Amino acid sequence: MRFDEAYSGNVFIKSHPDFEDAEAVIYGMPMDWTVSYRPGSRFGPSRIREVSIGLEEYSAYLDKELEEVKYFDAGDIPLPFGNPQRSLDLIEDFADKIFAEGKFPLGMGGEHLVSWPVMKAAAKKYPNLAIIHMDAHTDLREEYEGEPLSHSTPIRKIAEHIGPKNVYSFGIRSGMKEEFHWAKENGMHISKFEVLEPLKEILPSLAGRPVYVTIDIDVLDPAHAPGTGTVDAGGITSKELLASIHAIAKSDINVIGCDLVEVAPIYDVSEQTANTASKLIREMLLGWVQK
Amino acid sequence: MRFDEAYSGNVFIKSHPDFEDAEAVIYGMPMDWTVSYRPGSRFGPSRIREVSIGLEEYSAYLDKELEEVKYFDAGDIPLPFGNPQRSLDLIEDFADKIFAEGKFPLGMGGEHLVSWPVMKAAAKKYPNLAIIHMDAHTDLREEYEGEPLSHSTPIRKIAEHIGPKNVYSFGIRSGMKEEFHWAKENGMHISKFEVLEPLKEILPSLAGRPVYVTIDIDVLDPAHAPGTGTVDAGGITSKELLASIHAIAKSDINVIGCDLVEVAPIYDVSEQTANTASKLIREMLLGWVQK
Amino acid sequence: MRFDEAYSGNVFIKSHPDFEDAEAVIYGMPMDWTVSYRPGSRFGPSRIREVSIGLEEYSAYLDKELEEVKYFDAGDIPLPFGNPQRSLDLIEDFADKIFAEGKFPLGMGGEHLVSWPVMKAAAKKYPNLAIIHMDAHTDLREEYEGEPLSHSTPIRKIAEHIGPKNVYSFGIRSGMKEEFHWAKENGMHISKFEVLEPLKEILPSLAGRPVYVTIDIDVLDPAHAPGTGTVDAGGITSKELLASIHAIAKSDINVIGCDLVEVAPIYDVSEQTANTASKLIREMLLGWVQK
Amino acid sequence: MRFDEAYSGNVFIKSHPDFEDAEAVIYGMPMDWTVSYRPGSRFGPSRIREVSIGLEEYSAYLDKELEEVKYFDAGDIPLPFGNPQRSLDLIEDFADKIFAEGKFPLGMGGEHLVSWPVMKAAAKKYPNLAIIHMDAHTDLREEYEGEPLSHSTPIRKIAEHIGPKNVYSFGIRSGMKEEFHWAKENGMHISKFEVLEPLKEILPSLAGRPVYVTIDIDVLDPAHAPGTGTVDAGGITSKELLASIHAIAKSDINVIGCDLVEVAPIYDVSEQTANTASKLIREMLLGWVQK
Amino acid sequence: MRFDEAYSGNVFIKSHPDFEDAEAVIYGMPMDWTVSYRPGSRFGPSRIREVSIGLEEYSAYLDKELEEVKYFDAGDIPLPFGNPQRSLDLIEDFADKIFAEGKFPLGMGGEHLVSWPVMKAAAKKYPNLAIIHMDAHTDLREEYEGEPLSHSTPIRKIAEHIGPKNVYSFGIRSGMKEEFHWAKENGMHISKFEVLEPLKEILPSLAGRPVYVTIDIDVLDPAHAPGTGTVDAGGITSKELLASIHAIAKSDINVIGCDLVEVAPIYDVSEQTANTASKLIREMLLGWVQK
Amino acid sequence: MRFDEAYSGNVFIKSHPDFEDAEAVIYGMPMDWTVSYRPGSRFGPSRIREVSIGLEEYSAYLDKELEEVKYFDAGDIPLPFGNPQRSLDLIEDFADKIFAEGKFPLGMGGEHLVSWPVMKAAAKKYPNLAIIHMDAHTDLREEYEGEPLSHSTPIRKIAEHIGPKNVYSFGIRSGMKEEFHWAKENGMHISKFEVLEPLKEILPSLAGRPVYVTIDIDVLDPAHAPGTGTVDAGGITSKELLASIHAIAKSDINVIGCDLVEVAPIYDVSEQTANTASKLIREMLLGWVQK
Repeated sequence: MRFDEAYSGNVFIKSHPDFEDAEAVIYGMPMDWTVSYRPGSRFGPSRIREVSIGLEEYSAYLDKELEEVKYFDAGDIPLPFGNPQRSLDLIEDFADKIFAEGKFPLGMGGEHLVSWPVMKAAAKKYPNLAIIHMDAHTDLREEYEGEPLSHSTPIRKIAEHIGPKNVYSFGIRSGMKEEFHWAKENGMHISKFEVLEPLKEILPSLAGRPVYVTIDIDVLDPAHAPGTGTVDAGGITSKELLASIHAIAKSDINVIGCDLVEVAPIYDVSEQTANTASKLIREMLLGWVQK
Repeated sequence: MRFDEAYSGNVFIKSHPDFEDAEAVIYGMPMDWTVSYRPGSRFGPSRIREVSIGLEEYSAYLDKELEEVKYFDAGDIPLPFGNPQRSLDLIEDFADKIFAEGKFPLGMGGEHLVSWPVMKAAAKKYPNLAIIHMDAHTDLREEYEGEPLSHSTPIRKIAEHIGPKNVYSFGIRSGMKEEFHWAKENGMHISKFEVLEPLKEILPSLAGRPVYVTIDIDVLDPAHAPGTGTVDAGGITSKELLASIHAIAKSDINVIGCDLVEVAPIYDVSEQTANTASKLIREMLLGWVQK
Repeated sequence: MRFDEAYSGNVFIKSHPDFEDAEAVIYGMPMDWTVSYRPGSRFGPSRIREVSIGLEEYSAYLDKELEEVKYFDAGDIPLPFGNPQRSLDLIEDFADKIFAEGKFPLGMGGEHLVSWPVMKAAAKKYPNLAIIHMDAHTDLREEYEGEPLSHSTPIRKIAEHIGPKNVYSFGIRSGMKEEFHWAKENGMHISKFEVLEPLKEILPSLAGRPVYVTIDIDVLDPAHAPGTGTVDAGGITSKELLASIHAIAKSDINVIGCDLVEVAPIYDVSEQTANTASKLIREMLLGWVQK
Repeated sequence: MRFDEAYSGNVFIKSHPDFEDAEAVIYGMPMDWTVSYRPGSRFGPSRIREVSIGLEEYSAYLDKELEEVKYFDAGDIPLPFGNPQRSLDLIEDFADKIFAEGKFPLGMGGEHLVSWPVMKAAAKKYPNLAIIHMDAHTDLREEYEGEPLSHSTPIRKIAEHIGPKNVYSFGIRSGMKEEFHWAKENGMHISKFEVLEPLKEILPSLAGRPVYVTIDIDVLDPAHAPGTGTVDAGGITSKELLASIHAIAKSDINVIGCDLVEVAPIYDVSEQTANTASKLIREMLLGWVQK
Repeated sequence: MRFDEAYSGNVFIKSHPDFEDAEAVIYGMPMDWTVSYRPGSRFGPSRIREVSIGLEEYSAYLDKELEEVKYFDAGDIPLPFGNPQRSLDLIEDFADKIFAEGKFPLGMGGEHLVSWPVMKAAAKKYPNLAIIHMDAHTDLREEYEGEPLSHSTPIRKIAEHIGPKNVYSFGIRSGMKEEFHWAKENGMHISKFEVLEPLKEILPSLAGRPVYVTIDIDVLDPAHAPGTGTVDAGGITSKELLASIHAIAKSDINVIGCDLVEVAPIYDVSEQTANTASKLIREMLLGWVQK
Repeated sequence: MRFDEAYSGNVFIKSHPDFEDAEAVIYGMPMDWTVSYRPGSRFGPSRIREVSIGLEEYSAYLDKELEEVKYFDAGDIPLPFGNPQRSLDLIEDFADKIFAEGKFPLGMGGEHLVSWPVMKAAAKKYPNLAIIHMDAHTDLREEYEGEPLSHSTPIRKIAEHIGPKNVYSFGIRSGMKEEFHWAKENGMHISKFEVLEPLKEILPSLAGRPVYVTIDIDVLDPAHAPGTGTVDAGGITSKELLASIHAIAKSDINVIGCDLVEVAPIYDVSEQTANTASKLIREMLLGWVQK
């Protein structure tokens, strides 16, 4: 007596009805309460689902259709407003379960801090884990305004957790001097400004390793993603981001989970960013699951 | 493994998890394909659910809380795009089932034509049915541009079906000369421009009768509901509409179902209309169910 | 080989194709170059025409249909950008011709200064002319920043031209102290804040006189007309403005021309103001022409 | 070498250049970090200043000009992002200084919690203090999601601090059942839905007392103030709010400070709310300072 | 007594006043009623005309001025709302007449289905016709949701009509697997993702042939054309589209007509897409007429 | 008692408090009254300041932090509305003083005409001055609609003042035939369409010379800068503009002042353009001052 395949955007288009035999699990992490400048990403997952009904089910890039991958849309994790620590704990619990079930997690943010507990969960299961991180920002702060739980800190946290040498950042064009310095000192890889070319150079060295990929939508230029909290000129095009997703798909790395964060509908006047996000998610599903 | 109480707007706030013991059923009818001027109401139900998380659960008007009424959110009825007849059939089937289960249907449009199959279903169950209709428009056309399935026709259809004398329209400020003439000729009640005062006069005469209430959000002035397809100056305030809902709640009529239609998010730049709609639905649930 | 009745908004809905046997002439005055704060009204006339296709052709207020009045839409007067004096001269020439042909001019602004040459032309033809002025602002300045051709001056100009005692302003809620003082000193009527009630009191005293009515859309509260250059809280509702138009229609004055000015589409996000303006124009046509 | 009277909106129009001989002090409290649903009010003060350049300097309501009151615009208090307690301390320090200097504070929010430290400072100076509170919401929670520093709590805090009998709320239409109950139990005045009429009844009983007035812009209907975090249908008009300000101005109470909070530019698409706020502040300055 | 050269956007800038001696005819096809996801393109032609007044009359690319080409703006073809078949018949009649007069048709959509009757008319006159098609979508469906008259079908229709080998699609990044397969099976050319480079390779093989060019504005990336119904990331830049128009202008093919479709003003918040469309039309007029 | 470092956007982030020991001076020129098509740039400077609080203080491009340059934000020059000549005189006076103090002026427009008096002042101090001009438009008109003070004329004015051979324009894609012709005849450099590559070729020839750089934000493609008066497709990316700023920073020319003009917030729906402008200003400050 409940309609789940409706036009209402309740679930990502073509989601599989059963959790049990799904290979991948889509879920939302509707948290934006550590965001300083322009919050709003907590509504990102639901708008991405809503516009996904306009998505073509076939990828002309990968010559594959959505029905070739079984993914279950678990909805949004219910997170307690204004309580970052409890929210992160809930996300980690959920991610632990997904990994325990042998499924591929595809998370939608929410602010970037939500990636931290998922990456931590991934590191528990995959000791040899590497991180690929595409973003405009380093996100390497130890704390922001005295607060260690901030959207400026997730990459620092995972880098300290699994070792900076296992973290590869691409497209970075903003950060504090200290953040870039810390990365350099500690052997963490940062490609400034570009994604595709440096990624192609790095991928062979990661062959065979389990890799979690976290994408902040603001790695795109504001022209391509106005609907996000911190717009920063000089980013890459959606064409380059799509090509980067496909480069990973064709590489020999083992993607074991991923997320796309920081879509904020309030600034997304023509719904351009949400539509782009839903297309990116289609390519991530078709290119990275079941590799 | 599915989160339904999330921040994502999957369901109307405080929805009861089980259909079985619910008194009322909320559902969406995401159809807008007979709309001539500015479509977009197919996204109304999902946006109303999304903003309902900002809603206070207590009504200071009725001194009642949402948890005092058990309602189940059934999601959106999956309707075949561009096929009005099939869509109406599906809605009628659904409404038949709700009435058969003895539950109170609260529908969210979608365009106004979606009310027609629900009213028809109501008439099957309640032979003595009356209709209360609040709207800027008569909706009494026989057809529009040659098409009998049009958003300009639902009140004509139900008036012919149960007899024009059983239909009471309020707040009407637009229509063709012929429509007003037809109503007058056939003894149908139309209160032009106003809702609250004429409604208070009519209600006693309907005491004890089963009544279905259909509200087109454009009965409100565009100042109060810019997010709708056909904005028409000179409407009532949201204060008057709330008072009208409360007048019905305090009357001796037997509301057996209702709907709120024509919320179109694309024109609702500040989400004002969706927020107003979610408040109206709270008052309808608290005031009309279990009377 | 030219389509004038298209969906494109080239002409106001139901315009008569021939100038010769039209009783009224609709025309645009797309000038906004003396506007200080937020220009944009030069695009008002074309947007009002565009949305007029969504207008019901029948007035439920006046029980009359648009086809009962013959009006020709002359398009926009081509005005030289940035040259107020030449623009005003061109408008005056055009108005002279309309009056010479014995037709009723209905002008769409543009900024309020465009009313001045039309009122001047009206005064040539009707020596006993009175002005009814509905506005948030006095518009009684002698000059603005040293410039006598300003959108703050048209009522002062016509008041000095035909005598302040012949000018009646309603709904005024903004102006300089000196402006209110000048009006008082010179016997000009100003009703502050309200329109309908004081208008009803004044109308009998104007019985039989030729009257030109000029309406600045900002007499409406910003809730009812956000799409204008100078929004000013505390205005009247569109319901009251409609009622005021109808009060004039039912009075014994002789409306000989009118205008509606200051609709600025760039601030009219949901097209609410343009839609309201097109409805007001319908009522002005049906209520004031052929009285 | 610094331009303060520029078109840039650096200061509220006609601000006095010197703090020393100013009677009133305007200041911003750009904090919105305890806001749950839609933050953004931290940008309110700067947008209100920006649009104030479009404001008429004369009040046709009070027959008074801005230059008749000397007010200094102190800018925004620099508040540490994400740190409510420290922010409130800074605001309290600032308010203490204003009161110590014998000046009238006029604060611009920011979320409503910013009123709490100013009211606390007022209570130190004026032992017999009463509060007049206009709002859609009770704001009487003890905590929100476990957090006592929340935008839902300021009126509870001041009510407990100076005694609930000294707090008078008007226009309230939303809140939890417990909040209304607490007010009733403790003798606090709440006028539901209306402002002007109940205010007129209460004012005589407050004659001669020092009163701080706090206005949440959402006491206005969303039609009149879409640019705020929590829109709630059924509110009062800007006309009624203006009349309420004037009723206080004409009463025998002694207004010793005031604020206007919760203007959030991101939802204020046509800048209607910011413009209305700047007009309200003009009337508060002219009507309440130097009484 | 009609002003056609006004600021009102009645006609495309610098249109020739006479149909008779015009070489090209601009016209609108304001139809969007088979559009599934986000309609609104019916208002495209009128907005493109409106913003064309901001267009420079000289092309720095082609070193040519608009006055060097005589084009007549015929307005919008009046199409019966909701009746696709009758609309298509009316468009075909109009196109037949333009071709019969030996003029060059430049159509503005409206949804892409409007191109089908024009291409059919072109095929009657030019037996050796080829089609150049720039689009994000294949538009090769046989039907959509059971309906053969859909905006997803026009290229399939013309391909079956003149033979798939005569149709050349560029920039395609979305479609069903079956559509790409059908094209491949039937020898139709599809260049995925790119336009300029593959176009330069194909053009020599079309030398001397009559070619109709149909451009869907969504061939542009959403960054360059947010104002369209179906935004799809990964498109080309406006720079590449301009260069593609110029490549055709410099080639040896014989362009005999063209169109630009799918501009939808409701999503075009800054009027960026309409402005871009008007510039593209200038280049099409200067580069393709009178070749 | 005045807060200048507040969140209110009163000053550009990290501005130095003292004029005396500042190396550079930021100032606004809030004039837009000669703009024909879409005014609004007068609000540009204040919005750029407001969003500058979201700016990272470190440049990953130049490996430099804002605190390494001492700049004072002088606010906006108070300009008399509607009086271009007096406004230009005031700007020139101001620029004269800045140059006399040996400081580096960084101006924010406002329309492009505001650059003319600053360039004139620069020419007084630096007899050997050259101009680098990045823009979509030639701005070489002698007058516009008969008016020599127009936003279409500043480059013509400075070219005639210091000799056309000393002016280098880049990125130009719009203008009248006569303007391009005049430039060619008089030996002025114009690079059409591109900026970075031709700039790199020119820079060596300017080594050692004092150069003023004026950037019209519309040199960017509308995808990268929708918030400007005259959007014109086919422009460069923000990545290319950043690279061009850096190319100048690394060259041997002596930048002695600069400006960034034509940011118009009303069209900048997601604040993307203002954010980009504030980043460009950071790079100009870090790359060009103290070279």
